[in-house]
Amino acid sequence: MVDPIQINDALEQTETLLRAHDIDGAAAYLRSLHPADSAEVIRQLEPDEQAAIAARIQPLELADIFEQLDEDDAAEVAEHLDTETLADVLDEMEPDMAVDLLGELEDEEVDELLAEMEDASEVEHLLPYDEDTAGGIMNYPPPSLRRWMTVSQAFDYIREHYVDEEELLYLYVLDRHDVLIGVVRLRALILAKADQTIEEIMDPDVISISVDADQEEVAQLLARYDLLAIPVVDDQHRLVGVITVDDVIDVIEDEATEDIYRLAQVSEDAEIFSPIPRAIRNRAPWLYMNLATALISASIVTFFQGTIALVPVLAAFMPVVAAQGGNSGNQTMTIVVRSLALGEISLKDTWKALGHEITVGILHGLMLGLTLGVVAYLWHGNIILSAVISLSMLITIFMSALAGVLVPATLEKVGVDPALASSMFVTATTDMTGFATFLGLATVAVHLLVQ
Amino acid sequence: MVDPIQINDALEQTETLLRAHDIDGAAAYLRSLHPADSAEVIRQLEPDEQAAIAARIQPLELADIFEQLDEDDAAEVAEHLDTETLADVLDEMEPDMAVDLLGELEDEEVDELLAEMEDASEVEHLLPYDEDTAGGIMNYPPPSLRRWMTVSQAFDYIREHYVDEEELLYLYVLDRHDVLIGVVRLRALILAKADQTIEEIMDPDVISISVDADQEEVAQLLARYDLLAIPVVDDQHRLVGVITVDDVIDVIEDEATEDIYRLAQVSEDAEIFSPIPRAIRNRAPWLYMNLATALISASIVTFFQGTIALVPVLAAFMPVVAAQGGNSGNQTMTIVVRSLALGEISLKDTWKALGHEITVGILHGLMLGLTLGVVAYLWHGNIILSAVISLSMLITIFMSALAGVLVPATLEKVGVDPALASSMFVTATTDMTGFATFLGLATVAVHLLVQ
Repeated sequence: MVDPIQINDALEQTETLLRAHDIDGAAAYLRSLHPADSAEVIRQLEPDEQAAIAARIQPLELADIFEQLDEDDAAEVAEHLDTETLADVLDEMEPDMAVDLLGELEDEEVDELLAEMEDASEVEHLLPYDEDTAGGIMNYPPPSLRRWMTVSQAFDYIREHYVDEEELLYLYVLDRHDVLIGVVRLRALILAKADQTIEEIMDPDVISISVDADQEEVAQLLARYDLLAIPVVDDQHRLVGVITVDDVIDVIEDEATEDIYRLAQVSEDAEIFSPIPRAIRNRAPWLYMNLATALISASIVTFFQGTIALVPVLAAFMPVVAAQGGNSGNQTMTIVVRSLALGEISLKDTWKALGHEITVGILHGLMLGLTLGVVAYLWHGNIILSAVISLSMLITIFMSALAGVLVPATLEKVGVDPALASSMFVTATTDMTGFATFLGLATVAVHLLVQ
Repeated sequence: MVDPIQINDALEQTETLLRAHDIDGAAAYLRSLHPADSAEVIRQLEPDEQAAIAARIQPLELADIFEQLDEDDAAEVAEHLDTETLADVLDEMEPDMAVDLLGELEDEEVDELLAEMEDASEVEHLLPYDEDTAGGIMNYPPPSLRRWMTVSQAFDYIREHYVDEEELLYLYVLDRHDVLIGVVRLRALILAKADQTIEEIMDPDVISISVDADQEEVAQLLARYDLLAIPVVDDQHRLVGVITVDDVIDVIEDEATEDIYRLAQVSEDAEIFSPIPRAIRNRAPWLYMNLATALISASIVTFFQGTIALVPVLAAFMPVVAAQGGNSGNQTMTIVVRSLALGEISLKDTWKALGHEITVGILHGLMLGLTLGVVAYLWHGNIILSAVISLSMLITIFMSALAGVLVPATLEKVGVDPALASSMFVTATTDMTGFATFLGLATVAVHLLVQ
């Protein structure tokens, strides 16, 4: 029975052994854990500790551990290994994971490793594909059968070729040109009679994906059709690989994290304990871009200095109006960005979404504008101030609805991830609108305000 | 070959047929689609159209379609069916999905349906569990074998009992008390000899999860150990259900969406085309709570009206300082919230995270404070104004680092989802700090500023 362990406890145990210079003991302890857990512990060790441990774990076990690490973490550990050992590890890894790791290394190092590997053919088959595409996350070779095989021939074939296949879910059926023509579930094979042919028991309705498709599309398709694996085909519809659901779970989590971080204006590589220089590289550029837009908004305010000098209470309400616009714009934008990411809407729905959000925006603007107007009147007893606040709130929230839909839709249209820069543009729009309408209206009514 | 269709095209095709009053044609068209696609089309139809279509689709096919719908959407369609038909549909559905649908209905309707169903035992087994727990997403009965069976007996047993099992991945091995003692992969069964016993070929290292565990924990465990299914056990370690990865994908997407929406201060039920009243219910409460905190910040500003009247340019820079504090606090908070959600950190790491973020915050504060100070000097030529801006920026960003870590950590500690209310508290902190330090320092230095 394996009980999931607490990583913190395992890390402490490992570090205690290392501090006592019992490196063999630490290595033995890590080997006793599930590879996913030892991977997590090794990831958190210092480089010299990683080097000492890695030297004491066999390539076969190291391969299991590397498969559980993100490629950049695996590459850091791999640095401590000589070419020969690393080549042995790569030989033992799932080809798709080996390719991800190779993608982190220098070109000449990759060439050396490929030359050193016992069988680099599978890895070389996968190397050319872009890492964010179906080709980049697929595995090779996909388990396949021929249409003319009988069920008992198929069993023999599976025993001969797919003994090492970690998870055998579906067997894909090919014609003589390697074109994908059907799928057989392992369950169907077990239930079938020995002399039936594969063509008789296969399901010809097989959902496949193009090798060039974006990995997010793969995730959407698997989730939509509840598939455990999906075959990958080239433009001739020949089977070139297979993507299993466990690879896609990582994609779904990564894509969600990417969206969350981008919406918060943090680089998608951010990690809670990134080294300080990297943490600053991941965040400071966004802060500077926001500083630039904030200064543009500030210049609008300086334009109305005279009005503020006469009615300084405007300075208190001005950020309230802008902030409410920002909040409601952020709500709209987030719903649009997430719905686009999940494939729930496409660009065709832009006008429908715009109508919906304008309606919500006008109602929110009326509600909040009225509320704030009443509060301002009770506080300062100036009905003109209340009117200026209410009207500018309505206009700002209306504009926030426009920006909340049109900014992400425009970014999607020009091929930029809408999560990436929407926050900045929406906030800039609501700040400028909020300041300009509020102070503009106040300036028009300034003689009534100062009375 | 099935090519994924464009839902918009399918919806148009269906609506064209319905407008021509060809309901049989529309139903036939929908039956020709993959259930996931017909579900999506039906979801988007008007209630009267749904009723007409549902009446023309057989319970078996309707069950496939219902399994693809969210339970609330399925419940809307189910309203158009009489008790007898709906009971037939429920009989054909996967028990876990049937339970989700029943959870949307009135208690007495549920009792009627259970009485009407041909075999409600599986559904009744699952009904008591809370929908956000492992018990709430597991399926029943889990495919299981006994330790003493031979491989050929096991094959017979599988053919007899698990013919209808949509995806048979792992077979769980039980002792005489139904305690989980191992797992057999279908692949291992195929590769084994007919007279080996299950105990010989089973893997005793089986990772399981408690029936009370939170669904997010299930998702983390499956993702961490790359499992396609996980057995669910009670407190006696008896096997009570199984959760497959396709159910977990929905959980992962839903939990990510929930976090994204909560961070943006939108109710997690939000959908892009929610009816207007629901859209307002999902968002307005957050806007009102933010209005309240914004008014508290505004009251700080009114306290310094005298200073602003003397130096109205302060009104222009005041929101810049607060906004930069808000942005950097939002960055920190988002990274902390996401890392907690993914299980990358726990509460134990709070102090470490705080130290990290304070370091980043001080450096960001120095960088941005200096930059804005220089810009302000070039713009307004007042070195005292620049000093006030720089210092208040440093203090505000420092405070934003504190709030960005401590607010979500505190919410996690008291058992509230940190994604839920962090944004509001962090923004309130940075706004108040920004306004108070900036205007406070300006007031202290006001005689130097007006020169």
